[in-house]
Amino acid sequence: MKLYEFAPAPNPRRVRMFIAEKGLKIPIEQVDLMTGQNRTPQFLAKNPSGGLPFMELDDGTFLAESVAICRYLESMHPEPRLMGLDPRDQAEVEMWNRRMELELFGPISRTLQNTHPMFKARMKQFPDYGEAQREAVKARLERMDRELEGRPFVAGDRFTIADITPFVAIEFGSTMGIVSIDPSLQRLTLWRQSIASRPSAKA
Amino acid sequence: MKLYEFAPAPNPRRVRMFIAEKGLKIPIEQVDLMTGQNRTPQFLAKNPSGGLPFMELDDGTFLAESVAICRYLESMHPEPRLMGLDPRDQAEVEMWNRRMELELFGPISRTLQNTHPMFKARMKQFPDYGEAQREAVKARLERMDRELEGRPFVAGDRFTIADITPFVAIEFGSTMGIVSIDPSLQRLTLWRQSIASRPSAKA
Repeated sequence: MKLYEFAPAPNPRRVRMFIAEKGLKIPIEQVDLMTGQNRTPQFLAKNPSGGLPFMELDDGTFLAESVAICRYLESMHPEPRLMGLDPRDQAEVEMWNRRMELELFGPISRTLQNTHPMFKARMKQFPDYGEAQREAVKARLERMDRELEGRPFVAGDRFTIADITPFVAIEFGSTMGIVSIDPSLQRLTLWRQSIASRPSAKA
Repeated sequence: MKLYEFAPAPNPRRVRMFIAEKGLKIPIEQVDLMTGQNRTPQFLAKNPSGGLPFMELDDGTFLAESVAICRYLESMHPEPRLMGLDPRDQAEVEMWNRRMELELFGPISRTLQNTHPMFKARMKQFPDYGEAQREAVKARLERMDRELEGRPFVAGDRFTIADITPFVAIEFGSTMGIVSIDPSLQRLTLWRQSIASRPSAKA
């Protein structure tokens, strides 16, 4: 197996963190998103959608989409379980991972794409919409703080992919200057510190 | 089990179609999204996020998020397989389902929310952004037409959840007057007719 990725981007980091939690060693090749290397014929032949990361599997086929890659790794290397223990638990983890992706990661990305100078040359920006998304991010983080009451992790009592998704989204948004967590959100602050202290957070 | 849903909305239809393909009979209770019944204390106690559909399981717990509900049903009632046959195939189906959700269903929803009179009273609209999303939908449908070359279904040679997601999104967008498929997109047109002819499309 081999992972094609662009280290600074959040989706690749999700997969690296998942791989690190599994204790796997998978070769990595960097593809430069900033110069559009992922859109060259060489890479479009491997992943026609042009996104990163994607994985080359041992049979020579390619698999894209971060969560699909993680699910494949979970099947091939089940321990430690990061996507649930049994059907009920797997559905619970998927529910939370989707909420974090659709309600937090998505709005963070759209805030960035519509307000950050980095994206100005790459797409038409709608700054007012971006500001509204920034408010949606803020509201979702406040809700996340309430959801963490009485549970150390997003999906309950153990670390799962549903922690990786919001952690990576928050760290990326924070690096880009569009997310900051108010210290009054104590549960969220503690959760973030706890996830940041895991060795996989440095992967 | 019991499904709480609002029949006209696209996410509930995804789950109903999945249930119909499985040949399952699950009691359904309507929750009126238009009058905000899903936001009453009675329903927030069952699904704090306020979304629809959600499922009451036999142990009395609740599960939300359409794809999480589908995955649970797939585990409990594996045949016919709608989310892949083995780990590699499951990852392939997940890849395609996510693409359809993030790249097609998402932009259709955002076009609607930002341009349709129905949403005017419910959220702040950004019509220019909505128009740009409408263009993104059009471009994604054209790409989908190319992707369907040589394959009858989105994820390959058999019907899966990765067909349900775009079909429901397209039908909903079409009903709301924001999606129309150009007849020159022949593969997409044929695919849509083929999915529409399945009994589950009427569920």
